[in-house]
Amino acid sequence: MKDKKKLKIRFLGGVGEIGKNMTAIEYDDDIIVIDAGISFPTDDMPGVDLVIPDVSYLAQNSKKVKGILLTHGHEDHIGGVPYLLKEVNAPIFGTKLTLTLTENKIIEHNLKGIKLNCVEAGSTINLGVFKIEFINVNHSISGAVAFAITTPVGVIFHSGDYKIDFTPIDGNGMDLTRISEIGKKGVLLMMSDSTNIEVPGYTMSESVVGSTLDTLFSENADRRLIITTFASNVHRLQQILNLAKKYNRKVAFSGRSMVKVSEAAAKIGELNIENGLIIDIDKISKYKEKEILIVSTGSQGEPMSALTRMATGEFNKVVISDKDTVVISASVIPGNERMIYNVINNLYKRGAEVVYESLSPIHVSGHACRDEIKLLHSLVKPKFFIPVHGEYRHLKKHVDLALSLGMSKGSAMICEIGDTVELTKNSMKRGESFVAGSKLVDGVFVNDENSYVLRDRIHLSEDGLVVVVLGLHEASKTVLSVDVIARGVSMPEETIEWLKTHIEDTLNSSDLKGYDRSTIKNLLRKGVRKQLLNKTGQSPMILPVIVEV
Amino acid sequence: MKDKKKLKIRFLGGVGEIGKNMTAIEYDDDIIVIDAGISFPTDDMPGVDLVIPDVSYLAQNSKKVKGILLTHGHEDHIGGVPYLLKEVNAPIFGTKLTLTLTENKIIEHNLKGIKLNCVEAGSTINLGVFKIEFINVNHSISGAVAFAITTPVGVIFHSGDYKIDFTPIDGNGMDLTRISEIGKKGVLLMMSDSTNIEVPGYTMSESVVGSTLDTLFSENADRRLIITTFASNVHRLQQILNLAKKYNRKVAFSGRSMVKVSEAAAKIGELNIENGLIIDIDKISKYKEKEILIVSTGSQGEPMSALTRMATGEFNKVVISDKDTVVISASVIPGNERMIYNVINNLYKRGAEVVYESLSPIHVSGHACRDEIKLLHSLVKPKFFIPVHGEYRHLKKHVDLALSLGMSKGSAMICEIGDTVELTKNSMKRGESFVAGSKLVDGVFVNDENSYVLRDRIHLSEDGLVVVVLGLHEASKTVLSVDVIARGVSMPEETIEWLKTHIEDTLNSSDLKGYDRSTIKNLLRKGVRKQLLNKTGQSPMILPVIVEV
Repeated sequence: MKDKKKLKIRFLGGVGEIGKNMTAIEYDDDIIVIDAGISFPTDDMPGVDLVIPDVSYLAQNSKKVKGILLTHGHEDHIGGVPYLLKEVNAPIFGTKLTLTLTENKIIEHNLKGIKLNCVEAGSTINLGVFKIEFINVNHSISGAVAFAITTPVGVIFHSGDYKIDFTPIDGNGMDLTRISEIGKKGVLLMMSDSTNIEVPGYTMSESVVGSTLDTLFSENADRRLIITTFASNVHRLQQILNLAKKYNRKVAFSGRSMVKVSEAAAKIGELNIENGLIIDIDKISKYKEKEILIVSTGSQGEPMSALTRMATGEFNKVVISDKDTVVISASVIPGNERMIYNVINNLYKRGAEVVYESLSPIHVSGHACRDEIKLLHSLVKPKFFIPVHGEYRHLKKHVDLALSLGMSKGSAMICEIGDTVELTKNSMKRGESFVAGSKLVDGVFVNDENSYVLRDRIHLSEDGLVVVVLGLHEASKTVLSVDVIARGVSMPEETIEWLKTHIEDTLNSSDLKGYDRSTIKNLLRKGVRKQLLNKTGQSPMILPVIVEV
Repeated sequence: MKDKKKLKIRFLGGVGEIGKNMTAIEYDDDIIVIDAGISFPTDDMPGVDLVIPDVSYLAQNSKKVKGILLTHGHEDHIGGVPYLLKEVNAPIFGTKLTLTLTENKIIEHNLKGIKLNCVEAGSTINLGVFKIEFINVNHSISGAVAFAITTPVGVIFHSGDYKIDFTPIDGNGMDLTRISEIGKKGVLLMMSDSTNIEVPGYTMSESVVGSTLDTLFSENADRRLIITTFASNVHRLQQILNLAKKYNRKVAFSGRSMVKVSEAAAKIGELNIENGLIIDIDKISKYKEKEILIVSTGSQGEPMSALTRMATGEFNKVVISDKDTVVISASVIPGNERMIYNVINNLYKRGAEVVYESLSPIHVSGHACRDEIKLLHSLVKPKFFIPVHGEYRHLKKHVDLALSLGMSKGSAMICEIGDTVELTKNSMKRGESFVAGSKLVDGVFVNDENSYVLRDRIHLSEDGLVVVVLGLHEASKTVLSVDVIARGVSMPEETIEWLKTHIEDTLNSSDLKGYDRSTIKNLLRKGVRKQLLNKTGQSPMILPVIVEV
C-alpha cells in the first residue's frame, strides 16, 4: 500500500475556469477540503440556476473527509457547501463572517447537525495528519484567509483569494511577516490566486474608494444619493456608512441580501452601524433628498434586483428622478455587461446622474495584480507551484510568471478539474485523474453537465418545436387524423396546412402495417425535418406523437 | 400644407442602442436615407440571425425616397440595405469599398436592377432638394465619409463613424480643412458619432498597430504566425501584408469572408497584394513554420470561424501546436467576451502562444475619443446638435460635452428610434413620432420584435416543455389514452407516470361532455401546471394535444 501514503492534491473546481473553487488534499485516510464554491450559468445553460462541483469522489470517500476549510465568504467559495454537506458530513472551519454567511445557506437548505467552527486568523487547527494555520489576507470581503498546511510531506501554502492592501479599512493588512517566516522555513507547494495575472502593477487600496466616494458625497450635497455595491463587501459598506454619518444622511438599505448581510455583519461586529443611522426604506419620503442615502443591491444589473427595478420604474419604494445620483460601486463581471448597461441607460432616461467605473475610481479589485503576485512568490519561495483561481489563460500566464522568477520548468504545473497531483518531499507529478466536473442546479434538480435536457433546451430556444400528432387505427394502421402544432418557430398557417397535407399524402400512400410506433415516429421525424428544411430553411425540433385507437 | 415644408430628421436606428444605424432626412416630397445597418441579436433573442430596422415608414413613402447614402461598409451601416431595397427602390451612393461590400450583399439576396453610384470623397451630388457633399474621414475601414447636406433650411453635418488619424495608412486623413470651411459658413445641425465619448484623450493611430505587429514579427521570427482581424479592416490587412513581405513570409487567408473581402478589396485597388505573396491554405505544409503567416477570421470567437475551429482542433488545414503564435488583432465586442476567451484558453491548451489586446496594443479603435469629439464640435460649430451612434448613456454624455463646450441647453437633444425632429432656420423641436423599431431575421423569416415566437423560445429554453396527449372518444368524450412527453425538463420516469395517473384520475372523475376542445385544453394546461409546480417546483410550457376519434 505504498501508493496510499503519497500526498495528493485533487482539483474539484476553480482551475481552468472561473468559479466553483474547490480543492481536496489527501494523505492516507485523511482528506481536507478547501472551499466548496458555485459558479453562475453561462449562456449555453438556459434555465440553470447554479453550477456546483461534482463531488462524487468525496461522497465515495466521505469517511476520510476530516474537515471543510473556507477561505472567505464569497459564493464561488462557499455557495456549494450545502450541496457538499448533503454528501459528506464533515465539520466546517472558517472565520467569523465566512461562517455567518455559510450558516445562512445551511439554514436555507434546512440542514441539521452541521458543526461550524470559528477560527481566527493566526490560529492553528489539527485535522487528521494535517495542521492548518489560518493567515490573514486582504480581499473584497472581510475575514479572508490563506492557509499554511503542514502535511507529512511538507508545507502547502494556499493563498485563497487575496490582495495586498497596505491601508486596509479594518487596519489588518495581509500578514506578510508570517508568510515570510513560513516561506523561510520552507514551503513544498504553493497554490495561489491567478485572477489578475494579466493586470500590471498593484491593485489599488480599498481606501481609495473611500476618497472617491467622499468627493461624490460632497459634489452631490443637494441631491439624493443611491449607491449600489456587493452586500458582502463589508469594508465598502463601512466606508459608505461612515460617509453617510459625516454628511448627515440617513441610510436606507434596499434589496433582500443587502438588508440580510448588513444585519448579519453588524451582529458579529464586522460592521459598525451607529444608532439611528438606518431608516426603513418605506420612511425615505419623510426626509429631504439631500438627507437620504439608499444602499442597494443590483450592482450587476440582476433582473430582479432593487436597482434594476428602480431603473425600469417598477420599484415603487424608490422613484428615480433628476434629483438622484446613482453610484455603481462595483466592476462589471464579464458576461453582465449588457444587463448593467441597460440599467445605466434606463437610469439616465429617468433623468438621474449615474457614476460608474469607466468614469471614476469607485471600485477596486479584490485580487492581487502582477507585482503583488511576484511579491507573494518571492516571500513564499515554494519548491513547487500550481496556479489556481483562473481560466486556463490565467494559469498559463501565472506559470510563465513563476518561471520568469527563476522556478524550473518541471516545478510549476497547470492543472484542470479532475486532475490529481502527487507530491513527495522532492517530487511533484501528475497522478491518476478522478471523476469530477459540474452539476447543474435547475430549481430542485441536480443534473449532469452533459445532460440531454440542456441540449434539448438549446435546440428549442434556437429553432423552436413542431409537434406532429398522428391518430392511427391500432390494428389496420390507417391514418385517422394528422395535426401539426408549432411553438417558437415562425410558421404561417399555410405552411402548417401544407405540412399536414404532405404528411397525410405520404402516409396514405405507404403501407404502415408491420411498422411499430418507434419506426413510424422515426419516419415522421426524418420526413418532416427534410421537407421543412427544403421549403423554409428551418430546422425545429420535431416531436412526433402517435395516438393509436 | 405649411407643415409639409419643414425639414424633418427621422431616426430609424442607431440612437439609444448599438447597431443598425439609419437616419432619414425629409423635406416636402424628398427623403434621403443615411445608412441602413443591422445589429446582432442579444441573449434575449435565441435563434435570431440578424436584427434590422423596421422601415415601414419608408415603405409607405417609398416614392419620396430619392437615394440611400452610405457612410462606410460596416455591417451596422450597410447590412440592412438588401432588406430596405425590398421595400424601397432607390439608388445607392457610396465610396468604392462601401459599394463593393454592398454589392456582395445585393447579389447574395438575388436582387436585380439596383443602381449603385460610386462617389469619391470631395464630390457633391444632388438628390431632390438636397445637395450632399462627401467628406473623407478615418475609421477602421477605408472609404469612410461624413456628409455635409445642404437643405432648404440650412446645412446638416453628419459625421458617420469617424476618428481623426494624423498618420493614416493610405495618407488620407480626415478632411479637417474642408470641415472647418463648412463650419465657418454655418452648420444648422450636426449629428455625430458618440461611441467613445466615455474614453478620454485621442484614439491611437492605425499606424501604432503596425509598429506593434512589426515587433511581434521580429520576436517570433522562428515560429508560425497566425493573425486574426476583421476582414473589412483593409488598412490593417495592408500593414499585415507589408510585414509578411518584409519578413519573407507567404500569406494564406483562412475563412470565407477573409478570402472574399481581400479579393474584392484588391480588385478595386484598395488593397495592394504583391504577386506571389498569397498561397492557398492547402499549401502551407510545403513551407517551414517561419515562412508562413495565416490571416484568419474569428477575431470575436465566432463559433464557426476558422480560428475557433483551429482552437478546438476541428480545422484540419491548420493544426495548432507549440510552434504557433496567434495574434488577435481586434478588440472584444461587448457580449463576445466568453466566446473569445474560450478560443484563447483552447489555443493555450494546444501549446500556442497567444497575444491579445489586454497584453499588447495590437488593436486601435475606429471611433473618436473625447478630445477628438471636442475638436469636431469646435470646427463644425453647429447651431443645433443631436448625438448619434450610441446607447442612451453615450448620447447623454455627448450632449453633456456639447453643453460644456458652450452650447445652450435647448440646442442639443437626445433622440431615440421613432423620434422625428423638426428644424427651421432658427428652431429645433421634437415632431410627431412615427412607426419604427426592430424586425428580427430568423433564417428566411422576418418577424416583429415582440413576437410570441421569441417569448415561446425563451420559455422553452428556460423551463422546457411537457406535451400532454389525450385520446378522446369524440361523441362520448371518454378518455381513451393519456400520454406525457417531456423535453428540456429534468423529469424522472416516476414523475411522468405520476402525472399520467393524476390526469387520468381527474379526467375520469369529471364529465367532459359538453366541453369543447379548447376548454378541455385549458383545463389540462392549468391543472398540469399547478400540479407540477406544487410537486417539483418546475414550470415548463404545457402543450395539450387532443386526438378525437
